[in-house]
Amino acid sequence: MFPVSALDMGAAMKTLVLTLDLVGTFVFALSGATAGLRRQLDLFGVLVLSFVAATSGGIVRDLLIGATPPAAFTDWRYLGVSLLAGVAIFFWSPAVHRLRHPVLVFDGAGLALFCVAGAQKALVFGLEPVMAALLGMLTGIGGGVARDVLLSNVPAVFRSDIYAVAALAGATVVVLGDALGLPSTPTALAGAALCFGLRLAAIRYGWHLPTARAPEPAEADKDAGRDGR
Amino acid sequence: MFPVSALDMGAAMKTLVLTLDLVGTFVFALSGATAGLRRQLDLFGVLVLSFVAATSGGIVRDLLIGATPPAAFTDWRYLGVSLLAGVAIFFWSPAVHRLRHPVLVFDGAGLALFCVAGAQKALVFGLEPVMAALLGMLTGIGGGVARDVLLSNVPAVFRSDIYAVAALAGATVVVLGDALGLPSTPTALAGAALCFGLRLAAIRYGWHLPTARAPEPAEADKDAGRDGR
Amino acid sequence: MFPVSALDMGAAMKTLVLTLDLVGTFVFALSGATAGLRRQLDLFGVLVLSFVAATSGGIVRDLLIGATPPAAFTDWRYLGVSLLAGVAIFFWSPAVHRLRHPVLVFDGAGLALFCVAGAQKALVFGLEPVMAALLGMLTGIGGGVARDVLLSNVPAVFRSDIYAVAALAGATVVVLGDALGLPSTPTALAGAALCFGLRLAAIRYGWHLPTARAPEPAEADKDAGRDGR
Repeated sequence: MFPVSALDMGAAMKTLVLTLDLVGTFVFALSGATAGLRRQLDLFGVLVLSFVAATSGGIVRDLLIGATPPAAFTDWRYLGVSLLAGVAIFFWSPAVHRLRHPVLVFDGAGLALFCVAGAQKALVFGLEPVMAALLGMLTGIGGGVARDVLLSNVPAVFRSDIYAVAALAGATVVVLGDALGLPSTPTALAGAALCFGLRLAAIRYGWHLPTARAPEPAEADKDAGRDGR
Repeated sequence: MFPVSALDMGAAMKTLVLTLDLVGTFVFALSGATAGLRRQLDLFGVLVLSFVAATSGGIVRDLLIGATPPAAFTDWRYLGVSLLAGVAIFFWSPAVHRLRHPVLVFDGAGLALFCVAGAQKALVFGLEPVMAALLGMLTGIGGGVARDVLLSNVPAVFRSDIYAVAALAGATVVVLGDALGLPSTPTALAGAALCFGLRLAAIRYGWHLPTARAPEPAEADKDAGRDGR
Repeated sequence: MFPVSALDMGAAMKTLVLTLDLVGTFVFALSGATAGLRRQLDLFGVLVLSFVAATSGGIVRDLLIGATPPAAFTDWRYLGVSLLAGVAIFFWSPAVHRLRHPVLVFDGAGLALFCVAGAQKALVFGLEPVMAALLGMLTGIGGGVARDVLLSNVPAVFRSDIYAVAALAGATVVVLGDALGLPSTPTALAGAALCFGLRLAAIRYGWHLPTARAPEPAEADKDAGRDGR
């Protein structure tokens, strides 16, 4: 969901951004459809997961800042692109599977665009800097979280390589640029580039965030009903 | 949640619609309470699931179109009917269980009314046709999805017989009628009838949507941490 | 999330309430971080769960009454306190674990404050009494529900000792006081005290709500695909 109007860009730039935004939507929809297929959902379930994975981040952001109805429900292109991705996965899954590596790259590109766009839109709606960065990150990761919750999984973003942190870094660049009065197009590009670079590097070099040693399981189980509250 | 005021109907019609709407709420609440009972929730949990299953579709729709607070929080009858259904299931479960077949029929009636009402309300709030149909469907299926997510199940609507598709068909009739300038009462009735008929036929004849063959499990598991993202 | 401005209180009272509110946020964040740690989330996942558990109740309430953006996204202190709690759990989990008993007490205090504050804010936004009490309860329990859904658990509040009922009782006192035209500070205190007392008594004496006998499992499984809908 890229709020094109929020950016003071020339026409060529707008076309570029819209194209990339729809590419991001498409790729996130692919990830949702793939996840749905693996859980053997029917065609409808696969299409819903495509739409959910592609648009939930932007929808939640729009609800939180009061921008209703969300862009995903006013611009039919997001729906169209999501359904296209869902149908593609449903009928040509093996072919898409061979494109696994490009999909990861596109997914990083989608993440980069969504986090930047989310932060921009939050700033336009008057949120304070720290919260705008948070909402930018949320826009980037929200689709994946919604997809995993619907499939009854713990969201992958909570325990995998640098993903949310890359989104937060990209959104932070946008917010800093805005606070310093820099022009929005270059900062948006810089933020997207930082997020994209971090994400690709994390995939290539296997970067992870630290995980803590949990309390020993027996004790944890015993207490779960009490202070797990 | 039937936005009675949105429909230009006579008083008798309004009473009929409100009655049917509350019947739909009651039946969806029964389904939520039954699901909660099977997971051995306590009385409070069963009542919450009743309310959630009966009203989530309308609540999400109202949040998305910016109609806050949602009808479920301004008209106490939805709460009252939901709690009544929850208490009935909690204390007289076996008796209700014998009514399994009527419940399925009422559930279809509830779905039919909710999808039509959801599409109507979305049109009133100025959404475009395709999105209004989508929101109509969402109003119909949202309660069941929320119920299943709270119980940590993959939503049944994602892998069962024609259910969401029936809701989408009903909502589409309303949207088409609106686009063609037809009077809203007959189109609403036609949409509800189509949804109800499709749903009953799907139950009777076991109609299903196709499911695709998933990639073989071993491979899927191996990759899950990566491109399942 | 305590809408301080909504209460006609003196400055000392305001400071007290804000302090207690942030204590509540901190303790709910501790519970989220602890739950995340046990599922071996990475640092980011633990911090997200801290923020979610501490703020979801207030966020959902604000979305439902149309108060966007929610307080959790406009006052940075809620974020700061949540992250502090998450970091504390992540790095000093054993030490915090020894504080298990105080944490349960603080959690009760947080619940008491949140349910009262939620009901107050709902009244300010013009909701009817019954619904305001419901939203107060939701504000109190929402964070725990969101935490459990993200971790793919059935919400603990649905099947544990008197927790939601305590929140509902506290919120009801606020609503009754408002309906009777009583001054808001004493009723808020009375509501919080009732909720806190009920909760502590439920912990100490092991009070539970009744659970019903579910239909026998074999039958339930057989039917799950049908009337579990």
